[in-house]
Amino acid sequence: MFKKIQSLLIGRALKTTELAGEKFNVLWGLPILSSDAISSVAYASEEILLVLVPVLGMYAYGSMIEIAISISALLFVLVFSYKQIIDSYPHGGGSYIVASDNIGKIPGLVAAASLMIDYILTVAVSTCAGAAAITSAFPVLLPHKALIAIFVIGIITLGNLRGIKDSAKLFGVPTYLFILSIIIMIVTGIFKVLVLKVTPVELYPLKESTQDLTTLLFLKAFSSGCTALTGIEAVSDGIPNFKNPAQKNAKTVLILLAGIVFVIFGGLSYLSTMYKAVPGNDLTVIAQIAIQVFGQNSLMFFAIQATTAIILTLAANTAFSDLPLLLSILARDGYVPRQLSIRGTRLSFSNGIVLLFLSSSLLVYIVNGSTHMLLSLYAVGVFISFTLSQFGMFKKWTKSKEGKWKHKAFINGLGATITAITCVIIGVNKFEHGAWIVVICIPILVVAMLRIKRHYNKVKENLKIDSGVEGLIIREAITKYVIVPVQTINKSFIKSLNYALTVGENIEVYHVSTDEEQTKKLIERYATLGIAAHLVIENAPYRNINEKLVAYVAEKHKQLQTHEVITIVMPQFIIYKWWHQVLHNQTSIFLRRAILKMRNVIIITVPYIINE
Amino acid sequence: MFKKIQSLLIGRALKTTELAGEKFNVLWGLPILSSDAISSVAYASEEILLVLVPVLGMYAYGSMIEIAISISALLFVLVFSYKQIIDSYPHGGGSYIVASDNIGKIPGLVAAASLMIDYILTVAVSTCAGAAAITSAFPVLLPHKALIAIFVIGIITLGNLRGIKDSAKLFGVPTYLFILSIIIMIVTGIFKVLVLKVTPVELYPLKESTQDLTTLLFLKAFSSGCTALTGIEAVSDGIPNFKNPAQKNAKTVLILLAGIVFVIFGGLSYLSTMYKAVPGNDLTVIAQIAIQVFGQNSLMFFAIQATTAIILTLAANTAFSDLPLLLSILARDGYVPRQLSIRGTRLSFSNGIVLLFLSSSLLVYIVNGSTHMLLSLYAVGVFISFTLSQFGMFKKWTKSKEGKWKHKAFINGLGATITAITCVIIGVNKFEHGAWIVVICIPILVVAMLRIKRHYNKVKENLKIDSGVEGLIIREAITKYVIVPVQTINKSFIKSLNYALTVGENIEVYHVSTDEEQTKKLIERYATLGIAAHLVIENAPYRNINEKLVAYVAEKHKQLQTHEVITIVMPQFIIYKWWHQVLHNQTSIFLRRAILKMRNVIIITVPYIINE
Repeated sequence: MFKKIQSLLIGRALKTTELAGEKFNVLWGLPILSSDAISSVAYASEEILLVLVPVLGMYAYGSMIEIAISISALLFVLVFSYKQIIDSYPHGGGSYIVASDNIGKIPGLVAAASLMIDYILTVAVSTCAGAAAITSAFPVLLPHKALIAIFVIGIITLGNLRGIKDSAKLFGVPTYLFILSIIIMIVTGIFKVLVLKVTPVELYPLKESTQDLTTLLFLKAFSSGCTALTGIEAVSDGIPNFKNPAQKNAKTVLILLAGIVFVIFGGLSYLSTMYKAVPGNDLTVIAQIAIQVFGQNSLMFFAIQATTAIILTLAANTAFSDLPLLLSILARDGYVPRQLSIRGTRLSFSNGIVLLFLSSSLLVYIVNGSTHMLLSLYAVGVFISFTLSQFGMFKKWTKSKEGKWKHKAFINGLGATITAITCVIIGVNKFEHGAWIVVICIPILVVAMLRIKRHYNKVKENLKIDSGVEGLIIREAITKYVIVPVQTINKSFIKSLNYALTVGENIEVYHVSTDEEQTKKLIERYATLGIAAHLVIENAPYRNINEKLVAYVAEKHKQLQTHEVITIVMPQFIIYKWWHQVLHNQTSIFLRRAILKMRNVIIITVPYIINE
Repeated sequence: MFKKIQSLLIGRALKTTELAGEKFNVLWGLPILSSDAISSVAYASEEILLVLVPVLGMYAYGSMIEIAISISALLFVLVFSYKQIIDSYPHGGGSYIVASDNIGKIPGLVAAASLMIDYILTVAVSTCAGAAAITSAFPVLLPHKALIAIFVIGIITLGNLRGIKDSAKLFGVPTYLFILSIIIMIVTGIFKVLVLKVTPVELYPLKESTQDLTTLLFLKAFSSGCTALTGIEAVSDGIPNFKNPAQKNAKTVLILLAGIVFVIFGGLSYLSTMYKAVPGNDLTVIAQIAIQVFGQNSLMFFAIQATTAIILTLAANTAFSDLPLLLSILARDGYVPRQLSIRGTRLSFSNGIVLLFLSSSLLVYIVNGSTHMLLSLYAVGVFISFTLSQFGMFKKWTKSKEGKWKHKAFINGLGATITAITCVIIGVNKFEHGAWIVVICIPILVVAMLRIKRHYNKVKENLKIDSGVEGLIIREAITKYVIVPVQTINKSFIKSLNYALTVGENIEVYHVSTDEEQTKKLIERYATLGIAAHLVIENAPYRNINEKLVAYVAEKHKQLQTHEVITIVMPQFIIYKWWHQVLHNQTSIFLRRAILKMRNVIIITVPYIINE
């Protein structure tokens, strides 16, 4: 039944050998790994203007270009840097791997923790923003905003559980539509002003300002605009998801992505200057430009709005393809529960996908679908992991000193410095608005991962066969006592007893008496069986039958010699209907747990099936 | 840790032999079994006037006396009837026993279901009313009414988990204080009017009415007043809780209870006529009388209000001493889960007590502490069980035809007729206000109980040894195959293998391969062990390791001959910290469940303790 529903929702099971067929080529890898980066461009220009306009007024549009150029420069620094990472880490080089390889275990885990938080936030922020777009269109749905966001997360979850290639097709088309619409807008907008000499009508007229662009203001605006660069990392994380040649394909996608981000971000920044868009109003900067370029009720205006809304939602999908992969790498290294490294029936890392679904849905539920709270938490994590991976690469080059190491170290060192500054500025600006939560969560996650690792190491140590195999196999009887507990003599007990008789010689049938008469009957009945096994009777005035048995076993356990064990033969009713199980004492579970804590006690479970 | 908290909250464990010392004498049995009956008197007069006054106005007070006399007459019919029940059923004669003994299984279960619902409602209604008294005194607490009621239920639960005698002392004193306060009020009230010739001031003046008391109105008022009689049944249910001579003590308590109910109910009815109390106002009828007798801010007014509030709460305690007892009787008969018949460490039926706590708290939570919804459900159940037990006794006499059977049958027959009529009237009047819920719940409960019984019967049949003991004990090896699953060769596997070697000859080490390289290593390693046992390797392209093993075992299971079994030796990691268990695949639980469904497969669990 469960299997049928499962296969209906997520498709038929796939063999491990089918894994290669489920990987990305360049065409489908680009949209699935770039939606996060591209969707962040959608609000990056607005974020920059939001810092500049209130201080500089009309003068902001001049500064805008300077900042856009700086960010584009950083974009290319990052692209070169990540090309170097892809070359150095063919099996996927997320910040976690780069930082732990080159700086150390703890920085690696800090990067991993930042990424985890960031992926969860990406899902929550993007779907909430997507839900907001839907509720703006249909205001009756406003009270159900959180529910819509969670529903959207659910749809993305199902898509990802179905497997990698399917989800690429599902999400790739809208991404291309968004890119196309924006490029049409940029070309039309520039054409109208430069060729047709149309003078744009200012929607929100601004005054001039006498203030100049200070360094601090520049850095603030720059750091706000850096949101355009979030998601770049996705490509280098995702190398194992590419078809062969994976590294080459990944680099192609990275360059294409950077090109698209550059064109869209640069184009939008230029258009916003040309059309004098003013941020912080009812209309987004993109919407203002679209109205001026295409007109208020034009088809293209709606196309831009719709694809923007969809790509925001799809950005969440990047997290769904990357977080489970990151978790599976961490799981293989033993820092998170091992179940996260297992591929589901459709070859996706289903446990990680479900975990991301649960955590992001919870977050959406807590903030009730509002992005406001989440946005303050968002950027810190990204830039912590950026900085750590840049710095890791920087250390790699300065250590190896091979080839053009100075040139490479300069690129990564520059990236590390700029992202570190940005990170500090964001952290300071937004600390009291929520960044403190991230600052608390990262060390907690790191400590948890370290403790999980310690546990797995302990288990490994415990199980490891240190020396050779000689003497491991003991070719002699090792059962000292066989104990068969009995309450009443019935078929189930007889079945257990028969099995016990084949296991060892020294058999004891053990009864705890809570009712004298019942016990008397038992003794009489037992005598008729004609068995040599001794019937041990203990009284339990406090009716604690299980405790008595455990104490009895513990006493015998003390007397064991090397290689000797006690074997307990326990009958177990097998009942088919779940509600029938409620009707039977489930104390045997606690009994098992207590008995198995003794090193040399072995439990034999003899099932007795109840026919209905 | 859990044990310590438990003993702190509910006291030290008690031996079964200490049971006798925990029983009621008359002095403490009276308050604990009567609080329900006596507290219902607190609103019975009000209920009657609530029917009469809106129709008859001033003329209501004349009819009041007629109705009070009729109800008192019914009270004595019930007392005689229950005396007969106590004589006939020395081990406790609730409606369930009387109805199932004399009418049949189904009527017995109907009575039991009605009683269950009624006990849960008693707890919910009484504690909500008690909480209302508290929130009336401290209006700031009003938003937390449900929470207060649940807190009160929690306190009563703890008291009852501590054991019977303790709770008698805990709850007896306030009951006696209530009885005393009310009697003082009755005596003072009558003395003021008849001896001191004081003319009472009417608090809410009424007009005369020309309408007469119709038969229908009489019956309606009568049935409303019958709430005064709820709780009478408690004494005959509770016989096993009395000290010896239990029957004599129970009858003494029954008569004392009837006397108290008669005095208080009669006295209050008479006073309400004398002082012309008007129901349905801000002040309860009792409060109105208390103000007129003692004055608005007198100490006695507050004493009456406080003890009324407390006794309402304590009425819940009657249910806590009776429902677990009823459930234990039903459990012994196999109609409810057997765990309900087990006495806890303090000798109370702790499972039943906890169940009552949960169900009544849930009900309080659902209605958010308001008694209004619950009161409509309340009376139907009581009168269904009254009718069934009266009718049961009637059938008993007409069947036996011994001694003064006609006289006895007349008493019980009269009781059955009157309670049946009352039941129908209440049911019809309150059907749409909630009585329909009871009408739905009773058959559901009855069907559930019948199915539970059927299941227990099946189990009994399955386990019963039909013929003699000859041939039951098989003195030959019965293990055909021993299967030891392996993933990697480590200490835990070696321990399991060593044990397996002592169990049988035909051993197979079974490996499911999901990774070729790992499997190759395993084969090499296994060869060095130098064991004859065959290593079976299966491929699992869909990574469904457990399913493969289950299928393999199922295949072998088909080939078994009579008395042959398959033994599976499974290692199990024993991990102390609960959160560490999350880090390991819990699939072995599902594996065990699947394998144990095969009749002739036995599982040997070999623990491997992980040292931290």
